[in-house]
Amino acid sequence: MATPSITNRPTPERIFTLMNAFQNTQALKTGIDLDVFTAIGEGANTPALLASKIDASERGLRILCDYLTIIGLIAKENGRYLLTDESALFLDRRSPASLLAVTGFLGSPWHKKNTEALTEAVRKGGTAGVQGDNSKPQDEVWVAFARSMAGLTVPAANFIADLLGCAEAKACSVLDIAAGHGNYGITIARKNPNAKIVAVDWPSVLTVAQENAQAAGVSDRYSTRPGSAFETDLGSGYDVVLLTNIFHHFDKPTCETLMRRVYAALKPGGKAVTLEFVPNEDRVTPPAAAAFSLNMLVGTDAGDAYTFSEYEKMFTNTGFAKTTIHQVMGMPQQVLISGKPE
Amino acid sequence: MATPSITNRPTPERIFTLMNAFQNTQALKTGIDLDVFTAIGEGANTPALLASKIDASERGLRILCDYLTIIGLIAKENGRYLLTDESALFLDRRSPASLLAVTGFLGSPWHKKNTEALTEAVRKGGTAGVQGDNSKPQDEVWVAFARSMAGLTVPAANFIADLLGCAEAKACSVLDIAAGHGNYGITIARKNPNAKIVAVDWPSVLTVAQENAQAAGVSDRYSTRPGSAFETDLGSGYDVVLLTNIFHHFDKPTCETLMRRVYAALKPGGKAVTLEFVPNEDRVTPPAAAAFSLNMLVGTDAGDAYTFSEYEKMFTNTGFAKTTIHQVMGMPQQVLISGKPE
Repeated sequence: MATPSITNRPTPERIFTLMNAFQNTQALKTGIDLDVFTAIGEGANTPALLASKIDASERGLRILCDYLTIIGLIAKENGRYLLTDESALFLDRRSPASLLAVTGFLGSPWHKKNTEALTEAVRKGGTAGVQGDNSKPQDEVWVAFARSMAGLTVPAANFIADLLGCAEAKACSVLDIAAGHGNYGITIARKNPNAKIVAVDWPSVLTVAQENAQAAGVSDRYSTRPGSAFETDLGSGYDVVLLTNIFHHFDKPTCETLMRRVYAALKPGGKAVTLEFVPNEDRVTPPAAAAFSLNMLVGTDAGDAYTFSEYEKMFTNTGFAKTTIHQVMGMPQQVLISGKPE
Repeated sequence: MATPSITNRPTPERIFTLMNAFQNTQALKTGIDLDVFTAIGEGANTPALLASKIDASERGLRILCDYLTIIGLIAKENGRYLLTDESALFLDRRSPASLLAVTGFLGSPWHKKNTEALTEAVRKGGTAGVQGDNSKPQDEVWVAFARSMAGLTVPAANFIADLLGCAEAKACSVLDIAAGHGNYGITIARKNPNAKIVAVDWPSVLTVAQENAQAAGVSDRYSTRPGSAFETDLGSGYDVVLLTNIFHHFDKPTCETLMRRVYAALKPGGKAVTLEFVPNEDRVTPPAAAAFSLNMLVGTDAGDAYTFSEYEKMFTNTGFAKTTIHQVMGMPQQVLISGKPE
């Protein structure tokens, strides 16, 4: 027999991997739906043991768990499955850091449908979905967001509170715009007993934030201003305004309109704190921040993942003196701190 | 301001990446739908130039192409997009090695629907789709397969022909079971002018194989035996029987039933050639071969990606003396050669 020759010709493996990448999403969803990670965490570490705990077939569980091993969510040693540090922390229902609720938002039929209409969105230059203007209320989406995403915000919320020096316990008034679950403001209130938080969001969403403030024991320092961040009276004299994951929904003129309102609401020397996906100027690195732009294409009329120079320009245009950028460790987002001149 | 501490705590980035992995599939599909790769290959290397060639928005094309860069399908240099070696070869419509047709099968609504029913398939232990018994005809699926997948088979078809020493031009009769597009047999016929091929498949599928044999100029040495590989008269005295991507559809007893028919059809000293996804004994490596098992869970009643020891046992049970295994370079599949004793 002849020996086939080895060449450096490109192979189509990456293309097949990408064509099948949707299977990874589905396998993770099914693992969550069947609560496989919790079952493995509880010691059901073979297909037979899993089948005795979960209403599913041994064969199906074997193939699913092998696949979850291949994509790095669990490990397999001597034929037994075990959780990785990651899945033990984030996917075992018993973990205090469980992100199972987050997957409810990331895996929402709404997001899936928008993404599947990508071709139409590229043609149009904006979402092919029914609503792409996020300055209008969309209760179904944002209540789901508020109910599900708080767990995800812990690293960034702690990072922001630490960056603001909240442990120093100085009196501090904080306006939290588009508060959602409220966790960014609530974290500041928990760390600084002299911080007072004012949350702005749609009324139905603020209900969730208030529940969370209550649960965190800070509701006496937590008040709300229901309505659009573009229209409602925001109040004034704030030390800090939080703008977490909001600018990416809008085009630049709309971002500037909002930032002018923020400027007016801050006291001199106050700080606007922006949490955002900020790609490098090449718009293709770092991957997670840069890729976020696609979410805004499929889900909004004109939102984007703006670069630092774009944010700097928008913020300078609205009166802010200087903006600094800070990477949130282990998260794809960055924090921008913009000072209102004294 | 305090400096946030750096810890080794696991991050949820992998989980988010996997939750959003379906976006990679969609971005590739949209790139293909809009023929973006061909347009870039033709020199439209900025969003503005692309928008002048493609009926789509500049903004949408910019975000799509940035995303395709992030997932490695194109490159971006100084704000200009260019094809990689891979996308130039496989995704530019003008390339003779274009795999655009293949994506028609891999991205079929049928495969997508089956995969999205994974949770139910895990519960049942087999496909939740309407038909999981691939010993029965399913014209829609297999004609689509035959029409689209030939381009993908080139490396493995050449590998098999070389492994069989076809360049030596000895008289050689080949039975190609479940021939599909027919490319494995046709490649042997092209390389060896003294090879004669007999193809078995459903009648509607054999039409495609015959067209391909005609186009390859080997139709005078190409004949067919329409029907089920489990029921039709296969003939006898073959030097080689090809079994490419067939066993994975069935459970082990069914595989053995087929292999007994193959044994009977071979002449003494003849070879059965199996092309398959063969994971290692751990069933989780190498990733592409091992992951194939999930396709069989969602798409068949009882198919699987069997290990080498499982194939060895099945083939020994049916009379074959020895089976050797050969990796196809750059493809996730392996070739098993099983000899019928002299």
